[in-house]
Amino acid sequence: MSIRQGDAPQPGHPLEHTDAWPERVSIEGRRVRTCFRVRYAETDQMGMAYYAGYLVWFEVLRGDLMRAAGTPYPWFEEQGYLLPIVEAHVRYMAPARYDDPIEVVGWIEELRSRKVRFAYRVERLGETLADGWTIHIPVGQDGRARGFSQELLGRLEHWILAPG
Amino acid sequence: MSIRQGDAPQPGHPLEHTDAWPERVSIEGRRVRTCFRVRYAETDQMGMAYYAGYLVWFEVLRGDLMRAAGTPYPWFEEQGYLLPIVEAHVRYMAPARYDDPIEVVGWIEELRSRKVRFAYRVERLGETLADGWTIHIPVGQDGRARGFSQELLGRLEHWILAPG
Amino acid sequence: MSIRQGDAPQPGHPLEHTDAWPERVSIEGRRVRTCFRVRYAETDQMGMAYYAGYLVWFEVLRGDLMRAAGTPYPWFEEQGYLLPIVEAHVRYMAPARYDDPIEVVGWIEELRSRKVRFAYRVERLGETLADGWTIHIPVGQDGRARGFSQELLGRLEHWILAPG
Amino acid sequence: MSIRQGDAPQPGHPLEHTDAWPERVSIEGRRVRTCFRVRYAETDQMGMAYYAGYLVWFEVLRGDLMRAAGTPYPWFEEQGYLLPIVEAHVRYMAPARYDDPIEVVGWIEELRSRKVRFAYRVERLGETLADGWTIHIPVGQDGRARGFSQELLGRLEHWILAPG
Repeated sequence: MSIRQGDAPQPGHPLEHTDAWPERVSIEGRRVRTCFRVRYAETDQMGMAYYAGYLVWFEVLRGDLMRAAGTPYPWFEEQGYLLPIVEAHVRYMAPARYDDPIEVVGWIEELRSRKVRFAYRVERLGETLADGWTIHIPVGQDGRARGFSQELLGRLEHWILAPG
Repeated sequence: MSIRQGDAPQPGHPLEHTDAWPERVSIEGRRVRTCFRVRYAETDQMGMAYYAGYLVWFEVLRGDLMRAAGTPYPWFEEQGYLLPIVEAHVRYMAPARYDDPIEVVGWIEELRSRKVRFAYRVERLGETLADGWTIHIPVGQDGRARGFSQELLGRLEHWILAPG
Repeated sequence: MSIRQGDAPQPGHPLEHTDAWPERVSIEGRRVRTCFRVRYAETDQMGMAYYAGYLVWFEVLRGDLMRAAGTPYPWFEEQGYLLPIVEAHVRYMAPARYDDPIEVVGWIEELRSRKVRFAYRVERLGETLADGWTIHIPVGQDGRARGFSQELLGRLEHWILAPG
Repeated sequence: MSIRQGDAPQPGHPLEHTDAWPERVSIEGRRVRTCFRVRYAETDQMGMAYYAGYLVWFEVLRGDLMRAAGTPYPWFEEQGYLLPIVEAHVRYMAPARYDDPIEVVGWIEELRSRKVRFAYRVERLGETLADGWTIHIPVGQDGRARGFSQELLGRLEHWILAPG
């Protein structure tokens, strides 16, 4: 996967160099899929991936989705936006173990000028291990709510996939 | 705070030695309160505590509540139980910063033979920063559902505080 | 423990409010001691505290030492300093387990205008579990080396305890 | 990369299924190279990757090296071995930022029946950001020292690359 031609960031931007680097992301219609293995650091003494780590995995997907959308999160922050989380939810169905090959699939479930909702599904070789969602509010560097620009909404709305 | 007289674990048990150690826990009726400072490791480049860390803070409270209930989690695991999470929810209201003095208040919102629901509130000097809940299912070492014993239900039901 | 009278930060500073809050720190001559319990999040599937977490524990001690020295790290950052790590070392002697009451003792082993070296010892009920050290270089917000001011050196040199 | 033919684990073993999954690992003579992006969770309020995270990155490389050696760590644990760390060292040269494409290169620097020393270098697009090493002692499930079997030594010695 590479950032699409004509999209931000423009050539010469530091983010551009990463094209030579093996990405872990694939695009499936309006969904983005990323993959990694469970780290030993992420296990706990129950012998499974600790529950808070799933929110980190959601964040990995979110970063990959935003890069795929031509709005990499570092570039987004350079525009003066932050995207703090206001609500998060996870359902755990089956444990993930050390070294398991994990895939996270994610998409945008709702997009408004002042709110975005991402949805996620965590899989291992086709089996769903967990799912969840997060709601974010765009704010400026001063911490105040700041609506997405029309340009940003335009880039992101391609990825909306309503639930159901 | 110390583990109550007559409660498990019994004298001579390794957990007993901790009485000489300064606990961070206080008991408020059916609620337990614990405190700690935000670690630098827990901040992110937004300059606030990273969102997954709140689930870790919930876990700290859960461990302190179970110790207060006379059923310390290590003892619970020695009885052959694990208590994996099946659902987690967090609402983030205001950011926590590095070194902030954090207090987490928690209680049991629902207790059944095969399910327990904990509720949490994260505070800084009286201000609510976040709240949330987690649902857990008791299982045996083999990963199969295993109802709480009557003795365990008896110890834990003291801490039930219904919502609303 | 409370920040000493006459020391920075001055009354009215947000850090001042924490006096009403139970600190976990004690001062032993030129050493500072802090305590906490091992979190479930910090364990791994070997059933012990994961090795990277000891660097987090060192950081907790460092923050407590700097607060005890009248130079709380947030105040230090407000003065335009950062204190990145250039070298870290840990020796692991015995495993720490979930819920273990951990104490970290630390001191300044070397202090120069452009370098500070902290030393640490991790204990459980008197037994040494690990020790280590970190070297830090003061830099400005621009990332360039920036020597400690005479005032800062004056506050910190009280805590120097040479090895051996 | 895939586990080499004829090596453990044998066909039918659960680890075998991962051949269909995109690995992030490449082999360069006696070195193994792995890659990933810096997670937001790994940053701190200095705006760079937090220092303890480098030990997690070392562990990712270690897991990939052991899989490349035909001795995947989960299989190693199934044989009744654990490989706790007794010493760790890191030198930090340049900061890593969120979303940076990170590569970790690692090899075995010393291998004895009762000790193994891994070395690591963390790179970003060819620039060295950090290096370090870890020393491990093989132990049995009972926590007692247990020498590597001849078979294990045979598999691992292919990866020894002496310093200098």
